[in-house]
Amino acid sequence: MKVFPYADVEAQEADSGAEKVKVRWLITKQMGAPNFAMRLFEVGKGGCSPFHNHAWEHEVFILEGEGSLMSEKGPMKFKQGDVVFVLPNEKHQFRNEGKGMLKFLCLVPIEKKDK
Amino acid sequence: MKVFPYADVEAQEADSGAEKVKVRWLITKQMGAPNFAMRLFEVGKGGCSPFHNHAWEHEVFILEGEGSLMSEKGPMKFKQGDVVFVLPNEKHQFRNEGKGMLKFLCLVPIEKKDK
Repeated sequence: MKVFPYADVEAQEADSGAEKVKVRWLITKQMGAPNFAMRLFEVGKGGCSPFHNHAWEHEVFILEGEGSLMSEKGPMKFKQGDVVFVLPNEKHQFRNEGKGMLKFLCLVPIEKKDK
Repeated sequence: MKVFPYADVEAQEADSGAEKVKVRWLITKQMGAPNFAMRLFEVGKGGCSPFHNHAWEHEVFILEGEGSLMSEKGPMKFKQGDVVFVLPNEKHQFRNEGKGMLKFLCLVPIEKKDK
């Protein structure tokens, strides 16, 4: 059982293809999580994740800011308090289109995206 | 791919044993989630979840308010922006000890806690 402020976890540069994106791995396999991992992403003004797809889902909650989720059918706007669900293999990109920082939780299954 | 405000999902009374607790099932197996479900809990002032344990983990992010996580070793304080990780089989209870509403995300594996 653990309780800690998210900011105690180091913000790391995200994978290549992302612009102005940092990620904090909050709950991980190494901590004992058996099924899924919790990450917190921080995207600077104008920044974005890569437009890509993969075999695992994303379960996302927008904590702060606003932007768009780009898909092959075009963009969908999101803002603080929104839920975003991306199915496995759907092409997607998170874009910060607000005036400040965009922060969101993004959970992924551990088998697919180890850490 | 879905984007929606969390408040669009109905708040239901939580299981018996909880006091002043409502739950919104934001991302579920029925929506196509293959591995884990996202729920948002709202706990009124002085309310709490039952002091219980079960075979599945909780991955929690405190969105608003403050309180304590009760365990068999005693309480741990939490507040907005904190991460809470409860391992499978650990006895736990979420208590709202703040002046207003307590809101948190709580994710669970789908195999263990179907919805």
